Amino acid sequence: MSESRVEVRSLKDHVGREVTVAGWCYNARPQKRFKFLELRDGTGTVQCVFGAETSLNNSFERFEEEITQESSLYVTGIVTKHPKHDDVFELDARDFRMEGRSENYPIQPKEHGVDFLFSQRHLYLRSSRPHAILRVRHRVVKAIRDYFDSHGFTLLDSPILTANAGEGTSTLFATEYFDLGQAYLAQTGQLYGEAGCMAFGKVYTFGPTFRAEKSATRRHLTEFWMVEPEVAFMDLEGNMSLAEDFICYIVECVLTDCRPELERLERDISKLEAVKKPFPRITYSDAVEVLAQKGQPIPWGEDFGAPHETAVSADYDRPLIITKYPEAVKAFYMKRDADDPRVVLAMDVIAPEGYGEIIGGSQREENIDVLVHRIEHEKLPMEAFEWYLDLRRYGSVPHSGFGMGLERMVAWMCGTQHIRETIPFPRTIDRLRP
Amino acid sequence: MSESRVEVRSLKDHVGREVTVAGWCYNARPQKRFKFLELRDGTGTVQCVFGAETSLNNSFERFEEEITQESSLYVTGIVTKHPKHDDVFELDARDFRMEGRSENYPIQPKEHGVDFLFSQRHLYLRSSRPHAILRVRHRVVKAIRDYFDSHGFTLLDSPILTANAGEGTSTLFATEYFDLGQAYLAQTGQLYGEAGCMAFGKVYTFGPTFRAEKSATRRHLTEFWMVEPEVAFMDLEGNMSLAEDFICYIVECVLTDCRPELERLERDISKLEAVKKPFPRITYSDAVEVLAQKGQPIPWGEDFGAPHETAVSADYDRPLIITKYPEAVKAFYMKRDADDPRVVLAMDVIAPEGYGEIIGGSQREENIDVLVHRIEHEKLPMEAFEWYLDLRRYGSVPHSGFGMGLERMVAWMCGTQHIRETIPFPRTIDRLRP
Repeated sequence: MSESRVEVRSLKDHVGREVTVAGWCYNARPQKRFKFLELRDGTGTVQCVFGAETSLNNSFERFEEEITQESSLYVTGIVTKHPKHDDVFELDARDFRMEGRSENYPIQPKEHGVDFLFSQRHLYLRSSRPHAILRVRHRVVKAIRDYFDSHGFTLLDSPILTANAGEGTSTLFATEYFDLGQAYLAQTGQLYGEAGCMAFGKVYTFGPTFRAEKSATRRHLTEFWMVEPEVAFMDLEGNMSLAEDFICYIVECVLTDCRPELERLERDISKLEAVKKPFPRITYSDAVEVLAQKGQPIPWGEDFGAPHETAVSADYDRPLIITKYPEAVKAFYMKRDADDPRVVLAMDVIAPEGYGEIIGGSQREENIDVLVHRIEHEKLPMEAFEWYLDLRRYGSVPHSGFGMGLERMVAWMCGTQHIRETIPFPRTIDRLRP
Repeated sequence: MSESRVEVRSLKDHVGREVTVAGWCYNARPQKRFKFLELRDGTGTVQCVFGAETSLNNSFERFEEEITQESSLYVTGIVTKHPKHDDVFELDARDFRMEGRSENYPIQPKEHGVDFLFSQRHLYLRSSRPHAILRVRHRVVKAIRDYFDSHGFTLLDSPILTANAGEGTSTLFATEYFDLGQAYLAQTGQLYGEAGCMAFGKVYTFGPTFRAEKSATRRHLTEFWMVEPEVAFMDLEGNMSLAEDFICYIVECVLTDCRPELERLERDISKLEAVKKPFPRITYSDAVEVLAQKGQPIPWGEDFGAPHETAVSADYDRPLIITKYPEAVKAFYMKRDADDPRVVLAMDVIAPEGYGEIIGGSQREENIDVLVHRIEHEKLPMEAFEWYLDLRRYGSVPHSGFGMGLERMVAWMCGTQHIRETIPFPRTIDRLRP
């Protein structure tokens, strides 16, 4: 057999030549005069056509017996251009050689229950829908990193294992840490990002974060990735502009490079094309009024739930930025609004189409007295925050940042209802395998 | 004061113009007629010169009283080019405005103990040595991702929380996982990468990994980042070529973009410039002979320690690839050598200059019978590996991959002796804060 192995994605450069493709049988349809094999190799799928007259070494005869679903094999043939479709190439197959046989592959071309598919996630990744979603995830991650790397940010990997119980231990995973007592898995890298921005000006953390919450909703994972930029000498206004520009860049990258994936996922691409700057901006107080008008009243001071976010953002075709939330519903480190001490300089970015909050951020409190007061008020352990307070003792500056949940962003891009589809091996309250 | 704020790194574009720089006092040297302030903003450091005649608003007089080490402030002045040095720009300062005062900054311009500096890591990041090392880290991470992204790899984020105790629980961090019992923090993403390469052809995982080893050496962290490519239809030979090409690319990126950092770290740049393909390759058995000749004999079958690696690699000015280790010293999933069943198709890449192993990898065992036998032989829990065995049941293919420890790579690039310097917030057996 020919030794010039090529990937499916590169077939277009080999039209008319004999090549070998190595991959797995995605589907096989033997007919009387031609036998069709859809061969996937991870970079794409190619139709290999075995003809009764043209195939060698009895490959036409061996076809049904040997080529089962997800068997691995090498197919040799001549690359041809599809007569009707541009950008579609086929293999006028001559021969095949088996590598690894597959018998009774668990995932059949029929409807399976979601729970079954995720119990087979190690195999389910080969199916076209997970494949497309995770390719979009790949592109989103690259867009995130490219954006910050090209805008003067320094990557600051924050630790997963932390001594800070921080905002209470009830939603933290804990582990014994040698002779130092309990360590907790980080829920955020933000406090470390704040230290970083005083050293590097602009930083971002990007890594897995953990929530031991007993929430079993379609928007919760116990382990998920979060990117968190933090910028010195930046106020809430700058923070909003950064979030806006950042989101638009990601959407643009996905639209440019992931058309085939979005089409396979039947995503309404026009909805993503509408995502342009500027984003509408309203305050929490405005949003409360809008909710009252829409017949979903909520008392001023209470936090919004997913249905409120959906209702408020329903009028917009692009993300909505809601600012200035009541102090009580936001974290202790957010800066109070000088014009209205009831609210803090927070911002949430709500994706359109009901995909909910994708970004939460704020300007941070840089005044040590206010911050100490807030820590005391929330009955947090002051000692755990001494190093964090140092950032206000030694050259405190105005600074801001936000966190974006990667999986929520990917879910919005792909139009998937359940966030577990957006991560290779999801961890939820009832799933820890494979 | 002028509102046209610029970053230090951009001063070269503003020569002759009045600008404002926001930053922190790195050093202040008041003299009789001129007062000198080194202002750092994370993107660089600029010398601001206040003249008795030219400064406004009593800034010359206020200088000593107000500007203390690490105070944050805004300095306005005219950008000038250094009379002697190209690429050096100064600020002919007119005025300054304080933002946050700093009193008794803990890190003084004198020698501090390492333990003290790492207890102040949140502030120590501002010093020039950590700053330079973490900028190199940033560049290495970008090089790693760019390399794989541009070579057809799909990023596959593997889970941190796993049910697999895998190779024994003694070096694992454990946590309670709801009603599902213990979860363990991943030591590697490799098994997941293997599942991924059957779906995407080429994948890489890149994230934090954990070792609860009670090792307190200069080469161990309990939490560190590892990148692990895994490629379907690739053998040991391809794996070596990939590792070689990958390392050369990273070194090239660092040499191109991190000269100032390497110079600040007093790195011998010529040592890095020598790192070119091809790398020397020897077998474990050859290495045992070399060690005997060098008067450091080791019985065939025992694993190399750091001193052995240093001795064997001492003759080379570039990384050394050692292959085909005895089965007993390597992991169960490595493929046996068909020509010599005592050894497996493993490879370690040893950095020059005594920086030790930076890559460990292998061709993987694709035969399910051999793999089952190895799992039984090592008394590992078969049930935990059922999903992994599925990868051999359903279209098994030859495949290979490796893991590179990010911090070891950065330590080699920077020429640092202790790995804790290469990560923002190191976690070691006796350090969990800040």
